[in-house]
Amino acid sequence: DREKKELLKQLKGKPSETLDGRRMDIFANIGSFADVGAVLENDAGGIGLFRSEFIYLEREDYPTEEEQFKVYRQVAQTMAGRKVVIRTLDIGADKRIGYFDLPKEENPALGYRAVRICLDRPEVFKTQLRALYRASAFGNIAVMVPMITSLAEVREVKAMAGTVREELDREGAAYDKAVELGIMVETPAAVWISDELAKEVDFFSIGTNDLTQYTLAVDRQNPKLDRFYDPHHKAILRSIKHVVDSAHKNGIWVGICGELGADPALTETFLAMGVDELSVSPAYVLGLRKKVRETRVQDVKEAILTDLGC
Amino acid sequence: DREKKELLKQLKGKPSETLDGRRMDIFANIGSFADVGAVLENDAGGIGLFRSEFIYLEREDYPTEEEQFKVYRQVAQTMAGRKVVIRTLDIGADKRIGYFDLPKEENPALGYRAVRICLDRPEVFKTQLRALYRASAFGNIAVMVPMITSLAEVREVKAMAGTVREELDREGAAYDKAVELGIMVETPAAVWISDELAKEVDFFSIGTNDLTQYTLAVDRQNPKLDRFYDPHHKAILRSIKHVVDSAHKNGIWVGICGELGADPALTETFLAMGVDELSVSPAYVLGLRKKVRETRVQDVKEAILTDLGC
Ligand SMILES: [Mg+2]
Ligand SMILES: [Mg+2]
Repeated sequence: DREKKELLKQLKGKPSETLDGRRMDIFANIGSFADVGAVLENDAGGIGLFRSEFIYLEREDYPTEEEQFKVYRQVAQTMAGRKVVIRTLDIGADKRIGYFDLPKEENPALGYRAVRICLDRPEVFKTQLRALYRASAFGNIAVMVPMITSLAEVREVKAMAGTVREELDREGAAYDKAVELGIMVETPAAVWISDELAKEVDFFSIGTNDLTQYTLAVDRQNPKLDRFYDPHHKAILRSIKHVVDSAHKNGIWVGICGELGADPALTETFLAMGVDELSVSPAYVLGLRKKVRETRVQDVKEAILTDLGC
Repeated sequence: DREKKELLKQLKGKPSETLDGRRMDIFANIGSFADVGAVLENDAGGIGLFRSEFIYLEREDYPTEEEQFKVYRQVAQTMAGRKVVIRTLDIGADKRIGYFDLPKEENPALGYRAVRICLDRPEVFKTQLRALYRASAFGNIAVMVPMITSLAEVREVKAMAGTVREELDREGAAYDKAVELGIMVETPAAVWISDELAKEVDFFSIGTNDLTQYTLAVDRQNPKLDRFYDPHHKAILRSIKHVVDSAHKNGIWVGICGELGADPALTETFLAMGVDELSVSPAYVLGLRKKVRETRVQDVKEAILTDLGC
């Protein structure tokens, strides 16, 4: 803990960039408002993944627009201008909520979840979007949609966001006209069409946990499959590289918000690929900032990319 | 049926190639020995997918080497020199066999299945490999391994095949020294490392059913997801193109053995990509052969590949 304080003193206020001036933001993931304290203590540059599910999980019925608005506003205000990327409802798979009445499924990880539920139940999704846009007037909020697999889904989400903004305009409600709308890239489909998706959104965040499950066809919670679950698999690293290239060719930023982002053995790799942001548990923030500031990208880039064969 | 006879008369013995001389074999899939009649009736060039599971499914206990050998030999002999690609045991997921005592799983499609079981239970796998190699003396057998995700798995399979061949050599048992060993490319991981896999095996067969499930993260048997299951998704077509390129750069052939192969709306696309073989239900064989013989690849190739963005 003294070590951590020392690190904090040493890094506080310093830019998160390499010895040769490449910036990579280190943001934090949070799963409830209570985690915001840890985000600030660890001087994270922002919140790269705010899991909005807890608002739904801790209630017995759908949270109202007002209830959600208050939570989002509170986080935005507490972060005082630092970016807060809020992920829209990501339930289904292993996250079940009684009042959603989700069907029993053979393969829930390949099932009815996240944006699929939201597109199927626009009244639920619209309530959340209204709360998010209204809260954007109080800080630096970005909206992120999980489990995208197609252009059509993104366009449907954007159309709904457009409707919400028009409603707010008509009502004279305040919101930030520049709110970024991004998607999680966590299905192989999204990786393969990332060039087209990048033209539709403001940013990507690569969700390595799900992406790894789908790419390797391995449920990581299945103990029989430990020997087949390799988070460093070249297929994953090449997928990330491909997504970064698609993003940058289209002028948008790209982060990583899965567990892989916190693996210090890969920080140089992510820098070499050009990843713009890592979002990790608050406890990993300072260590990664230190790592970034000690790296010289030009020294490692060529060997890393050659090794990956890309 | 008269139409089919007409088609058969018209195509029998004719090469399966386009107007501009590009060959694409049309093979058949079979799920039991009883299907071989349909293969011959429809004059398929060979069997591109022999699902060996039925030998296990119709018994109460593990089939012996001798029992398996007789089935494989019979198919090889009946096909009289035409290629017979036999897929090694592909159980798990929705195919359960009591005596295998498979664990109950949260997500069986992302679970303990196919080659994962075989590598975990080498005695079961070795018995099948011995039967396959011995049967290869009686016809044109190729061995195909499903659900590959890594180089390590392929190398382990090859080591086991090597051991089996050495055993047969020592025993003086006959087998075809040139038996091809290939893999199914049906996980996104295999697609992404297909360049490396192609250096290790003799052929690829793209299993579009599973590949589509994993790529889109959609269980195709889940009725709630119909609107999200798009077998023509650009991610799938680009994956296929990528695998074909990897195969050809390394001098091996590549087929498709999922349902997509039988879709006549895609035959020109597969020809444009350079797919070497389609393996489909016997009933689709003649229609596809006709389609191939009516296509001029040079007329359609550029537009198709440009449209795909590859
Ligand atoms: Mg996810
Ligand atoms: Mg399969």
